[in-house]
This record gives sequence, C-alpha cells and structure tokens, in this order.
Amino acid sequence: MTESWATFGADLHLDLAAGRGLRAGLTEALREAARSGRLAPGTRLPSSRSLAADLAIARNTVAEAYAELVAEGWLTARQGSGTRVAERARPRRAAPAPAAARVRPPARRGPAYSLISGSPDLGSFPRAAWAAATRRALTAAPNDALGYAVDARGRVELREALAGYLARARGVYAEPERIVLCAGFAHGLMLMAKVLRARRVRDVAVEGYGLDIHRDLLTEAGLRTHPLRLDGAGARTDELPGTGAGAVLLTPAHQFPTGGALTPRRRAAAVDWARTTGGLILEDDYDGEFRYDRQPVGALQGLDPDRVVYLGTASKSLAPGLRMGWMVVPDALLEEVLAAKGHTDWTSGAVEQLTLAEFIRSGAYDRHVRGMRMRYRRRRDAVVEAVSERASVTGVAGIAAGLHVVLDLAPGMERPVLQAAAGQGLALEGLSAFRHPTTDLPAREAVVVGYGTPPDSAWSLTLSALLSSLP
Amino acid sequence: MTESWATFGADLHLDLAAGRGLRAGLTEALREAARSGRLAPGTRLPSSRSLAADLAIARNTVAEAYAELVAEGWLTARQGSGTRVAERARPRRAAPAPAAARVRPPARRGPAYSLISGSPDLGSFPRAAWAAATRRALTAAPNDALGYAVDARGRVELREALAGYLARARGVYAEPERIVLCAGFAHGLMLMAKVLRARRVRDVAVEGYGLDIHRDLLTEAGLRTHPLRLDGAGARTDELPGTGAGAVLLTPAHQFPTGGALTPRRRAAAVDWARTTGGLILEDDYDGEFRYDRQPVGALQGLDPDRVVYLGTASKSLAPGLRMGWMVVPDALLEEVLAAKGHTDWTSGAVEQLTLAEFIRSGAYDRHVRGMRMRYRRRRDAVVEAVSERASVTGVAGIAAGLHVVLDLAPGMERPVLQAAAGQGLALEGLSAFRHPTTDLPAREAVVVGYGTPPDSAWSLTLSALLSSLP
Repeated sequence: MTESWATFGADLHLDLAAGRGLRAGLTEALREAARSGRLAPGTRLPSSRSLAADLAIARNTVAEAYAELVAEGWLTARQGSGTRVAERARPRRAAPAPAAARVRPPARRGPAYSLISGSPDLGSFPRAAWAAATRRALTAAPNDALGYAVDARGRVELREALAGYLARARGVYAEPERIVLCAGFAHGLMLMAKVLRARRVRDVAVEGYGLDIHRDLLTEAGLRTHPLRLDGAGARTDELPGTGAGAVLLTPAHQFPTGGALTPRRRAAAVDWARTTGGLILEDDYDGEFRYDRQPVGALQGLDPDRVVYLGTASKSLAPGLRMGWMVVPDALLEEVLAAKGHTDWTSGAVEQLTLAEFIRSGAYDRHVRGMRMRYRRRRDAVVEAVSERASVTGVAGIAAGLHVVLDLAPGMERPVLQAAAGQGLALEGLSAFRHPTTDLPAREAVVVGYGTPPDSAWSLTLSALLSSLP
Repeated sequence: MTESWATFGADLHLDLAAGRGLRAGLTEALREAARSGRLAPGTRLPSSRSLAADLAIARNTVAEAYAELVAEGWLTARQGSGTRVAERARPRRAAPAPAAARVRPPARRGPAYSLISGSPDLGSFPRAAWAAATRRALTAAPNDALGYAVDARGRVELREALAGYLARARGVYAEPERIVLCAGFAHGLMLMAKVLRARRVRDVAVEGYGLDIHRDLLTEAGLRTHPLRLDGAGARTDELPGTGAGAVLLTPAHQFPTGGALTPRRRAAAVDWARTTGGLILEDDYDGEFRYDRQPVGALQGLDPDRVVYLGTASKSLAPGLRMGWMVVPDALLEEVLAAKGHTDWTSGAVEQLTLAEFIRSGAYDRHVRGMRMRYRRRRDAVVEAVSERASVTGVAGIAAGLHVVLDLAPGMERPVLQAAAGQGLALEGLSAFRHPTTDLPAREAVVVGYGTPPDSAWSLTLSALLSSLP
C-alpha cells in the first residue's frame, strides 16, 4: 500500500467538538480517533500543513496538537515517515462477532488441485489485452456512457458487437435491439424465471443431469422443475409434450455435464413443442465457442428466434469474474424481460461493457477464443489418452467440445475414485452430484473432469493426481 | 470498427447440411446466411485458408464456394478488402416489431443543457488514471480474483481499501468484514428493503423531501413510507417515535435535496430512537466527500455502528456508470444482508472492484475528489453570486456541500421558471418533484440546481441559460 495520500492531500475526517478551543478540540478528536481504532495503528496522518488547510486553521495549531499526542503516546513522529498512529494504540471494537466470522468463507486450505468443471483457465485470462481494451474504450467513450444507464438493455456498443459476433460465430439471429445484457448466465436465468412466473408458468422442464444451482434458482422463483431423460444425443425433447411445462432449459451445443450435442431431430422436436404449446426454450450456450473435432454445432436459437431465448456468457470464454452475460430475446418477450430487470440496472459497469465491446470489435476476443481452443484441445487429448488404459474407466463421453469430459466408471467405483482424489489433494466431482433428484434415469457412475480449470503451471501435476485416483 | 478478425482467425458458424457434397453444402450454408441477413451486408468473410482450416476441408472447396456465390451476387470479392457479403443482400427479418421499438429510449433530442441534480461532471471522469489503475490491478490480481466470487461481500482488496478510506475521510467505523459491496446506492437500498421485510418491518420513515425512485423502491418491496418534516437543520428525527417505523432513511451529511446537515441534536435523537425501539437507521452518504466552507460533517454511523447501516457510492465521487456502491453493516445484520444478496453475486465485476481498490490505495481517489471539490466550489460560487441580484430568487439553500443548491423562489414562480428553462433548452427540476406525496410540510417553491452535472465545456452556457430563466 502506497501511502501517498499525505502528499497528495488525503481526507481525514475529524469531529471537532463545538465550543472548545481549536487546539483542544483537535487534540481530543485525534486522540479519540486513535483510541477507538477508527484510525488503525500505523496509519499515516496528513502533514500539519495539509490538515491545517483542510480545517482552515493555523498550521501551528495542528503541529501543537500532533506534538501533544506524540507526548501522550498516541502518535509517533519520525523524520521522513511523517506522523503516524502509534502501534500500541488498541482499537475499541473487539474482534468481529461470531455472526460475521461464520459467514466468512473458510480459510483457503482447500485441495491443492482442482478439476471442478465450470471454470476456464483463469491463468490464461488476457490481462494485458483487456487492460489495453479498457484504455481504448475509455478514450473513445462519450461522457454519457459514464452516467446513469438510460437503456435497461445495456450499452448499445456492446449489444452491437455481440450481435455481429453471435450471428457470425454461433448462428444466432441477433439484432442489437433484442439483446439484453446481464451479469452472467444465472442473472439471465433469474430474469427469465421472473418472466415465466409473471406469465403464470408453474413448470419448467430441465435436463435430467444439470447444475443444481440452476434448478435451485428456478425453484426459489416459485417454479417446479421436471427432468427430461437424456443420452449421448442430448435431452429427450420428445418427452416435452407430456410434461405440461411452459418452458424448457436446454444446453443444446454441449449438454452439461454429460457432453452430447442435441441432435437435429431433437432440436426440431423442441421447436415443434414450443410452437404447438406456446412454450419457451431457454438455451444455455455456456461453452459454445469451444468445439474440437466435429462440425461446429450452431445455436438452437437459429431455428426459431421467436420461441428461443438465447443465453450466453463471457464466464467460460474469458472469466466469470467479469460478471458479463447476454440474452437474445424474442421480440414479443422483450418488454417483459426489461420489466423483470427493472429500472435499476444491476448489469456490469459501463466501463466493462465498453471494454468487452472493444475487445470483440478489435478481434481480441476471437484471438483469445482460438488460442484457448487449442490449449483446451491439447488438455482434452492428454486426459483421453492418459485414462485409456485405466481399468476403472469404462468410457469417455463428451469429448467433442467444451471444457470437461465425463469418465464413466465401473460399477461401485464413483465413490472410491472421489475419495482417492480427495486423498491426492484433488477436487473432483462425481456425475451423481448433477443428477436431478426425481429423474428416473438409471444411475450412472462417472466423474466429471473439468480440464479447463487448472492454470497451465499446475496442469501436469493435476493430471497426475487424477491418474493416481483411478485404479 | 477494425475488421481484423479475418487476419487473426475469426469464427464463422455455418450449418453444413449432412449428406450433401461438401462444396454444395458450404455454398448453400453461406447463401442462406447472406439471404437471411444473419451475415449482414458488408460483413467480411474469413479468408478461404482460414475457413478451410476451421472446417477441416480443402481450401479449394472454400474458394470454389466463394466464387460461386460471388457469381450469384451474394458475395463480393475485391483485391485488398477480401470477400464480403454483398450490399444488396437483404435481411429476411423485418424491422424490429413495435414492442421492441416502444421500449427503445427516445432519440436524444433532449434539452441542450442540464442542471438536473444527482450526477457528477462526467466530463471530468479521470479516464487515463482509471485505465492505468485497471492495468496495475490486473497485473497484481491473483488468478482466483477472476473466477466465480467466493465471498458475497465482494473482493477483500476493495473492502480493505474502503475501510481505511471511510474511517479516515468520513468518520465511519468500518472493518472490511462488515463491508458489503453492491452495484450502487439503489442496489444497497433494495437489499435493505428485503432485510426489513424479512424482519416483518412494514413502515419506514423517510425525509419529507427526497428522491421518488428511492421511495418507490421501498414501496415495491412491500414497505410503507412515512415522511418526516424537515428544515434547514435536516429531518425532524424527534418525530420518529410517533411514526411506528422500524427503520428510517436519512441523508445526514447533506439532506437531499434541501441541503441542510443534520444537527448533532437531531443525530442524537435518531440514535436514541433506534436504541430504544430496535429500529435501524439507513444512512445515505451520497455526496459526503464534497463540502466547502464549513467543518466537515462526519457520518452518523460513527455515533452507533450497531444501529446504522451506512451506504456510500462512487456514483457522485467518480461516475454512476461504474455501478459501484458499498454498505457498512452492523455485525448483527451481516448474515441477513448477505442472504438478501444471494449466492449469485450481481456486484460489479471483479476487474472494476480491483480497479477501484487500486485507485483508492494509490491516492488517485483522494486526488480526484480534492480536484473536483475545487471545481464544484467554483461553480457553486458562480451560481450563488449570479442569482444574488435576481428578484425571483428569495433565498439560496444547501450551499455548504454537495453538487447542488436550492434556489427558493417568490410565490407562484416555480412553474414559470421551469417553463422558461425548458424554453432555453435547459433541463431543470422544481423542488416540488421531490416532495413526499403525504407530507404536511408547507409547499415550498424552489428549483434544484445540480451544478455538478454539466461538463466544463458547457458550464458557462448552462449558467447563462439558468439566469435567462430567472426573472
């Protein structure tokens, strides 16, 4: 921490009691600030000249007050390092109360390695390119971009950049007018849950395997979830007519977590169901950018932009910490989505929206995705090859795309493998953690290997830990 | 827009129909993309080499498909500018439907000048310093800062920087553990409204003059608002015991919009009421950094950190577009606030949180606030001096701090002055717009002059427009 503020003129708030001499009041105020811990031990005080100017009093008054407190031991003064609150001054307030302590996350003594799915390699975030895009975006931004948002959809610069990108790379029909920016996929799903409840929808079909936090989010919004069966060809959308659902949440490009791509026949079945019943399809295109051996699988939204709400995110292609997502919304639904979002725009800040727009426009986004695709593909190849000889692994699924694969295990092996992984200091999830609680799919023993997660520097040790966990 | 993506390898999604010749399939897919408008006229296609590599087909196949579509008129090829979608290719989709058009904000043919309160001078946002702080913050950030948030309070780096700043400059008792970051004041108020409703609070006292959007936010959360009377010494907190309210929303440092600072006696009355009844004080410290002639007025929170929820924001000190706010929460309330915030963190992205932390730590925040304080003070002086001779102005209130003053007007003058301002192309608000609908305060005719709003370049013309509107 650079403590340059004394030089540059920092603010120091002091309650000068009324009706006392200036010097006495200032002395007491400083003493109280040090005694109470409001000014932490070691804090550097403004120079007497600077504080005197702030308070519009004589510099000598400040110097005398400082001297008195140094004499009392509350402050220390040393040539060259200025006047500071003495280290022995102890704060009034006790340590944080138990309530606060309980909500504090546990100290990070977690596993040494992680293959938990759902994260990109954060070590490869293009920091320098992102900072450069921020600088360019800020240079070009109009003043009003920094003001209160006037459009609940988010900045038009980013919606235009995304419209071009999504059409080109993901086969999405996306006009900027129908794009609504949000703070990641979960935020978009929450908005859609609100819209569905406002339309009096009660039931949403989901995939038999999926993320519990997404199911919980729907449940908390007052919706019931109904699991569709699924197989290597994705969710059984032919079951939709029997569910009574008003909407379905799908991961068509790469089923999460089992890894299949929804087949053309099943895509058609989903769209037919939506057209016949007036239902909505929520398309979670979480890792559509990352496909390897096969023909790219376009977004389902291209089949019927009036019945599909497309949801995308920068969480896998760049980093979840950006809190940046987007929805492409059917015309007829736009007003409802914006009403759910509300006047107060919780979207990411304007600077990050403008930065991502510049990042896409300049080609840096394509460049980053392409580079990551090659890295992830090498990691996938390494996993697939390394486990090919393991007796416990009966199959590898979902290898064509994404940032994870599913290793099917011999019966009874999921729990022992997870325990062995924990013993190796490796965070790893079993497939059963993703199973919908009421699905009648046969139990499947497998582990989900999020090979995208480790930084490059930890990759080979992480892979070794995985192999050591697999008999 | 730099179209460098063809060089760097852009993604182009194509649906190649199965069971057809590769070249025929590619040709049809490109034709359909151009015909349907998915690829906008003018879009530059990847080079044939790059697309061939993407699709793992022969370059010649791509080149032949391109040539065929050029012959058909769907594409154009020109030396040096590559292959593009022809301008005459017309999109399939019609213009956005009326629904979408309605929600689009009207074209900005608004007033030429604005003295609407609530915004800082966006033209003075420290763009270069902010971009530099982003670069430094990104360089220093640990990888996991870019991942999913593990602490619903927000990044610890920013909470630590804020704790030091708020203690020093605003007299707030703020440990990083009790700071919760949010996306601006309104987000924080919404979280507190949820907490109050969960505690079965039904009634909240508010100031007789205030922002309607804050009152509406409380009302939409299911709370009733009760106006306190107020005068030049702030809100009449001695009225609190009669309201039956479970909480009170106050602007102690600088009443918004009437401009008084809550007196020590009234501060004590608010705290006494809170201690006696178990009520909560929500302190909106929206512009506490900006004070001019008088002794700085510290935060009310310093009087009783267990009964006051302190809410601050970067919206006035830096820019609303950052969507950055913070709450300092009593220990006993922390878990409830985090439960209201939810697992899914809508806070500003990690990069902006880290940037603000670095901005504060490096001294840039103090430097910016100090510089803006001098500019705003000069503007305030200019307004006060300029209106001193106007017959229609009977008083000037709230001049000691903040980014606005209130000009009291002779009876019957508020509406004519606002009309004259509109005629001058000047956006200006009357005080009556801020009046609580059920307050029994006597009507007060005045205009609220947000002198912080104009960029420097527009300041003198804006002031002239104001003067021309005042008889």
